[in-house]
Amino acid sequence: MKRRSFIKKSVVAGAAATVAAASTLAAPAIAQGKRELKMVTSWPKNLPGLGTSAQWAADKITQLSGGRLTVKLFAAGELVPPFGTFDAVSQGTADMHHSAPFLYVGKSKAMAFFSTIPFGLTSTELVAWMEFGGGDALFDETCAPFNIKPFLSGVPDYTFMGWLNKEIKTVDDIKGLKYRMPGIGGEALKRLGATVVNLPAGELLPALQSGAIDGTEWAGPYGDMGLGFFKAAKFYYYPGFHEPGTGVDIAVNLNLWKSLSKDDQELISVVSKAAITRCHAEFTAGNGKALTTLIETHKVQMRRIPDDVLKALAKHVNDALEEFGNSDPATKKVYDNFKAFRKEMHASAQIGNESYLAARRLALG
Amino acid sequence: MKRRSFIKKSVVAGAAATVAAASTLAAPAIAQGKRELKMVTSWPKNLPGLGTSAQWAADKITQLSGGRLTVKLFAAGELVPPFGTFDAVSQGTADMHHSAPFLYVGKSKAMAFFSTIPFGLTSTELVAWMEFGGGDALFDETCAPFNIKPFLSGVPDYTFMGWLNKEIKTVDDIKGLKYRMPGIGGEALKRLGATVVNLPAGELLPALQSGAIDGTEWAGPYGDMGLGFFKAAKFYYYPGFHEPGTGVDIAVNLNLWKSLSKDDQELISVVSKAAITRCHAEFTAGNGKALTTLIETHKVQMRRIPDDVLKALAKHVNDALEEFGNSDPATKKVYDNFKAFRKEMHASAQIGNESYLAARRLALG
Repeated sequence: MKRRSFIKKSVVAGAAATVAAASTLAAPAIAQGKRELKMVTSWPKNLPGLGTSAQWAADKITQLSGGRLTVKLFAAGELVPPFGTFDAVSQGTADMHHSAPFLYVGKSKAMAFFSTIPFGLTSTELVAWMEFGGGDALFDETCAPFNIKPFLSGVPDYTFMGWLNKEIKTVDDIKGLKYRMPGIGGEALKRLGATVVNLPAGELLPALQSGAIDGTEWAGPYGDMGLGFFKAAKFYYYPGFHEPGTGVDIAVNLNLWKSLSKDDQELISVVSKAAITRCHAEFTAGNGKALTTLIETHKVQMRRIPDDVLKALAKHVNDALEEFGNSDPATKKVYDNFKAFRKEMHASAQIGNESYLAARRLALG
Repeated sequence: MKRRSFIKKSVVAGAAATVAAASTLAAPAIAQGKRELKMVTSWPKNLPGLGTSAQWAADKITQLSGGRLTVKLFAAGELVPPFGTFDAVSQGTADMHHSAPFLYVGKSKAMAFFSTIPFGLTSTELVAWMEFGGGDALFDETCAPFNIKPFLSGVPDYTFMGWLNKEIKTVDDIKGLKYRMPGIGGEALKRLGATVVNLPAGELLPALQSGAIDGTEWAGPYGDMGLGFFKAAKFYYYPGFHEPGTGVDIAVNLNLWKSLSKDDQELISVVSKAAITRCHAEFTAGNGKALTTLIETHKVQMRRIPDDVLKALAKHVNDALEEFGNSDPATKKVYDNFKAFRKEMHASAQIGNESYLAARRLALG
């Protein structure tokens, strides 16, 4: 139907009927450049911030392609399991995914850098690295062996360390904690004596309520509120040292990618960039609102991780990251580039961003 | 040419010649939906971050419209003067502009809020306000009486207070300074005893070199380095309390806007969002690199505005902003919305963003 209405618009009225008839009769769908693309995701349908981002991107590609592309979205589990999207796109079972690179560190450790690294890049810095720091090219290089062309397509803003019923006052308080935290952040907790577990989102609240775990991270206020952790834990620890700005991506099957016209390739690239703006804005506005509600309505008690604990975490993160980043040549190449960029961003952010936020505190209280 | 190649792709080979002939003969250009649009800008051609953003947006709209729209860019002064773009679009002399809302506070004071306010929203928070906090609708409402449909299309990151040869150690050091700073920030300096001047970009370096002014702001490191201020001043003061995150926009003549198809309207909206990502990334990466060069190569001395001076500036900014924001009902409506959003963002940014940057300082030094 879209194809027909498109043709109707693009030719003069008198010729429309002829053309429509000719198109229908003479050529296969692919030769007309009309395709239906399956986009699989790692998120429930319309999950705030992530499911909504995936849907938005799918809809915009469809709308702006003038009927040539129709992107059909599949929520986690509908076509493939939530963490099976990369393989599905790689093998061509699906055409695209909307997911997060760090879910696929099993394919290449380098993938972690395109999502988030403890004490690493903020959301804004991650986008800057991808667009102007060489990140995009390294992401392409990392995914090409898997027959995938990737795009950064969203950056949730800050996260928090997470929810606890016990207070952390010294490094010793980490010992024996049963905590849910994946990746290098979790590894640092482990090296400080915690028992680190990994449970899927749906099991976290019951585990917290039963005491099976003492604490859990998930995202920031916007993501966490929906999972209801405030019902089971009274302390909310910040900052999110382990996930300062998590990149999510759109990945396209490379064979499909190569068969697209230059304009359709550019359309996917531009919609991905627009989706970054929208996703970052949704999380930023959503975090503000959710944090207010958590503190004022649900009486959650905010706790800052003490400096000594942050320093101990940092030591173990730095050690673990050195091991992780140097574990193979492809990962080392990404890690070295990331480290140099982080150094420049860190100096710039202290003087430009952090000092502004401190000044605004003086001005607004 | 683009129209023809587009048609070639969208119909079967056998019908192409017929259609092309029919299109050419039977309908005026407008009925075919093919238009050339003039985009005027307030920037020199390819000015880093702003001219480059305008060009990128013009090119993407052209490329992704399938030949229906061709956006031709005009640098500042080519078609209209740099600060004449709003009137040109309003009157239809030009079809679109790429400029900054706060250049047009003469039309409505409310325009300032869509660019930047001292001690106001950061770049990321501004985008969140526009997309999810009601800002976009207020921007539409502010511009509609001028026959303009506006879009946020870029957010340079942080700025700095600027360049000085004298040090500011106490509030008294502001007295008698001849300083270039526009808007409410400049008003606060004036209330502390400075003589505030406004000079165009090209006159700033000579004025600084001759001693005609003691100091000037412009943008952040990325924007300032190109203007060569490091040759004439040794102290670089931060933070940029007066411009924490400046929005730039694409404005479309409202008559033209209403005549566009829904898809072409959406294309302009999506390209504007993508341009925000790209512009913010260019400034973020560029600021990091420029700051390193300024400090390491040009031996610029960074100076933080002392707390007492920041507090005094904040007092006068808050007073001046209350007057400014309440000066007419339309501006008050925007100001009230902005204030509520800023309050939520400020709490969220302290706990989420500022505390993360402080933690990273503990981790990386």
